[in-house]
Amino acid sequence: MNNKLSLAQSLQFYQERNIQQLGQWIDAQPYAEHSLIKAMKHGTLLGGKRARPFLTYVTGEMLGAQTTDLDTPAAAVECIHAYSLIHDDLPAMDDDNLRRGQPTCHIAFDEATAILAGDALQTLAFDILSSGPLSADGETNRVAMIQELAKASGSQGMCLGQALDLEAEGKHVGLEQLETIHRHKTGALIRCAIRMGALAAGEKGRAVLPQLNQYADAIGLAFQVQDDILDVISDTATLGKPQGSDIELDKSTYPALLGLDGAKAKAHQLYEQALHALDAIPYNTDQLEVFARYVIERNN
Amino acid sequence: MNNKLSLAQSLQFYQERNIQQLGQWIDAQPYAEHSLIKAMKHGTLLGGKRARPFLTYVTGEMLGAQTTDLDTPAAAVECIHAYSLIHDDLPAMDDDNLRRGQPTCHIAFDEATAILAGDALQTLAFDILSSGPLSADGETNRVAMIQELAKASGSQGMCLGQALDLEAEGKHVGLEQLETIHRHKTGALIRCAIRMGALAAGEKGRAVLPQLNQYADAIGLAFQVQDDILDVISDTATLGKPQGSDIELDKSTYPALLGLDGAKAKAHQLYEQALHALDAIPYNTDQLEVFARYVIERNN
Repeated sequence: MNNKLSLAQSLQFYQERNIQQLGQWIDAQPYAEHSLIKAMKHGTLLGGKRARPFLTYVTGEMLGAQTTDLDTPAAAVECIHAYSLIHDDLPAMDDDNLRRGQPTCHIAFDEATAILAGDALQTLAFDILSSGPLSADGETNRVAMIQELAKASGSQGMCLGQALDLEAEGKHVGLEQLETIHRHKTGALIRCAIRMGALAAGEKGRAVLPQLNQYADAIGLAFQVQDDILDVISDTATLGKPQGSDIELDKSTYPALLGLDGAKAKAHQLYEQALHALDAIPYNTDQLEVFARYVIERNN
Repeated sequence: MNNKLSLAQSLQFYQERNIQQLGQWIDAQPYAEHSLIKAMKHGTLLGGKRARPFLTYVTGEMLGAQTTDLDTPAAAVECIHAYSLIHDDLPAMDDDNLRRGQPTCHIAFDEATAILAGDALQTLAFDILSSGPLSADGETNRVAMIQELAKASGSQGMCLGQALDLEAEGKHVGLEQLETIHRHKTGALIRCAIRMGALAAGEKGRAVLPQLNQYADAIGLAFQVQDDILDVISDTATLGKPQGSDIELDKSTYPALLGLDGAKAKAHQLYEQALHALDAIPYNTDQLEVFARYVIERNN
């Protein structure tokens, strides 16, 4: 990847690459015409920023991994993210009708198909990560990547975060608990995306995992703070999902706890923390730096 | 494991071992008091025949694997089975209130928790399989086991089978299609349980995979044929789930297509095929033989 590309070009490059990769994986499934497979495509191939694959790619490339070696973890982490969105949108969970500007999976298909498509996308993540191509450097860390993805996704990570989030609806939640929710619900998978990019680079990647953790934790939380801010100040058309849904669900958010200016200050503080973590990494961290700025400046 | 134990004793031995192992894995999760974790326990620790772990254990031990080496794949395969039951029982799927003589997960907790507990149990399967202890023989096949479990569980296996099954409700389904449904819905994971037992035994296990496939395919289908028979001739108390639910859901079954005697003959024919497959395996296949008989003679 040419480092002179703008972030927008770079995001688009990896977005298209990720969509193509996932398309190939899903097309390789038997029964391609079945609604289960169509629902899996609906959940993975339509839009989305693909922040997690992007982070896997730019982290790995910074550390000298081949782009082809990063396809495998990037596709796997996006499958987990896509499955979580399908299940989170279900009537028994957040009951959302709109996602990425499209009808959510259970609206476009039905609830049973959406549950199964989510289930099958989670499985596909581990199928990809255990079967996908990796060169020798990546292969030494294949099992470590699978462990990372499992620990980030399940009852120690993302699933626990969603459970804590549902439980907190309609309750007063303090800043510390809000951070605990988001560190699990969104932070764990963002951290995993970055760590898998490093692991795909072999030994060189392992050496900078502590610094990458600090960067990941800062931007993971900043991502959520900015999401909360956008839910207040943006509009449904720009977001591709209903604006104001946090207020409707009576969710605790950073603007609710800190005020809008306080939330913006918090996002900026996390951005500074992310840059500080990058200072300690002896490689070209430009892409990660630009991405950190994007996290707190994006409007959707 | 002492080969002189009766099948009932042997089943109970592995059942208790599997429950203990899964209990340890789940207790090691943080937030043990959260309803998500309690729902995961509800779905995995209460009853169940544990046919899949049993098959992993007896296949592996037949091939010289240490019992401690089989704990890892046995726990993983049961997690997948348990998650699938939680999701299959959901209102949007089979809408069952009773399972293993207990309220189903969404009845004991709520729908959102049941969806998340199923999701987290699927993740736990891959967490266990990537992190659980394996000696050198098993370690050489760890990635292969993860591949097996992923391919058996997702849109090429169990999830596809459930989707095909839901689609077939209320429609006339021929014998061939019924077999396709069950080979995916239940057969794939039973085959996987057996193959992982073999893979945990290292090279020795790999050598007999073709014969084990034949055995697995025969008993996997026989298992379903007998389930269909029991849904007609048994009662709710013995089954631990509502008797007659296939008829209520207007599902195609072997007794419906072949008559009760025809279904019994089919089960016996599959039993003979299973024994024939075992003839070609140069180890002590007693436990697998006795289990095949149990499959077609069990009353719950």
